[in-house]
Amino acid sequence: MKHLLLASTSTVHGSSYLEYLKPAIERFFKGCKQLLFVPFARPGGITYEEYTANAANFFNSINIDVKGAHEFENPAKAVEWADGFFTGGGNTFLLLKTLYETGFFQAIDTAVNEGKPYMGTSAGSNVAGISIGTTNDMPICYPPTFKAFNWLPFNLNPHYLDPLPDSTHMGETRETRIKEFHQFNNQPVLGLREGSWLECHDDTITLKGHLTARWFIQGKEAAELDSGSII
Amino acid sequence: MKHLLLASTSTVHGSSYLEYLKPAIERFFKGCKQLLFVPFARPGGITYEEYTANAANFFNSINIDVKGAHEFENPAKAVEWADGFFTGGGNTFLLLKTLYETGFFQAIDTAVNEGKPYMGTSAGSNVAGISIGTTNDMPICYPPTFKAFNWLPFNLNPHYLDPLPDSTHMGETRETRIKEFHQFNNQPVLGLREGSWLECHDDTITLKGHLTARWFIQGKEAAELDSGSII
Repeated sequence: MKHLLLASTSTVHGSSYLEYLKPAIERFFKGCKQLLFVPFARPGGITYEEYTANAANFFNSINIDVKGAHEFENPAKAVEWADGFFTGGGNTFLLLKTLYETGFFQAIDTAVNEGKPYMGTSAGSNVAGISIGTTNDMPICYPPTFKAFNWLPFNLNPHYLDPLPDSTHMGETRETRIKEFHQFNNQPVLGLREGSWLECHDDTITLKGHLTARWFIQGKEAAELDSGSII
Repeated sequence: MKHLLLASTSTVHGSSYLEYLKPAIERFFKGCKQLLFVPFARPGGITYEEYTANAANFFNSINIDVKGAHEFENPAKAVEWADGFFTGGGNTFLLLKTLYETGFFQAIDTAVNEGKPYMGTSAGSNVAGISIGTTNDMPICYPPTFKAFNWLPFNLNPHYLDPLPDSTHMGETRETRIKEFHQFNNQPVLGLREGSWLECHDDTITLKGHLTARWFIQGKEAAELDSGSII
């Protein structure tokens, strides 16, 4: 009885923070009054307070109260207080390491498996997959494992980018990197472009937004999934 | 008494494998007859044999005999046989994990500290720094640590890319990622563009190639280093 909203990015070009997701968020968190924000990925080194204030600014506009995970004495109290969870983007290694070190990993995992809704953007979506092995982020710190929440039966690659046809750069394309991942890992990988998100209710996972997404299965050619696909 | 040649990439656009580095390589490995190739990063999942054959094809043309690390019974014998080392690119996580698991990490580290020349490209250069924390690669496997050879008193970021001025993509730029690294790590980072390399003899490290390189120090604005700079 999991309820997940997992977006590639919090912000699409030319729009404000979470604006493009607002109707989806209002439906998803209907009945939810108190939201726990997980600021651990904190992009660019902003403080937990600043990052939480950003999120609160958005959610207050739809009448949802927000507290940051760092404001609670312990994860059990935070999770008990919350009707739902939102984990923002930033660095996935830092997010996963901090989730484990603080004990929030286990607490949130249990609550989500029991039905409290969870929303993630970017790094916050990445951790909903089997592992963080398909993150684009720099390994700025060393987590105790790459294993993630395992709520989805596959991995995510947020901010998915198609190869640039005219590029002279010799670094690997995103598709090449995901194929390398499949040399050593057998879970499928969903490349989620900016503007796409997944909604998961119980075991039904639906691709939302107007774009297609790129679906990688070990040993097969990558394929495009249409918006509205059930994965 | 270390001797290092560390390139951003093995191949620049429009040129064949290692071709742009050929004069530098001939000087660097002068007197070296037997080269140990470390194929552990194996890009795109090619076999160790195929990857070693690629390297041998180049080095045989300058009269250097090549064997792959995987062809030896144990690291001690391989390192004893070799007059020098070349570690090719691919995936840095996979390279570091395999170096540790096979025992080649310690064996090569000792030999390089005793003066045998080491050349790396891309991932093979990355591991010469303090850690692999500034790699661009996907974490397709979990190494026992991010600590690398520590031959340089800083980290490398190979295939360094400048931000695209017209990009609408919301993923982090390379510079943003390195700044995030500096939230948690205090070593300098050298962004080495494709076509640049470092030569290190004893404690003198020189930037080679015709491009500038980007130098990041914690808490300071990033700066450009001219070709020929001593770092």
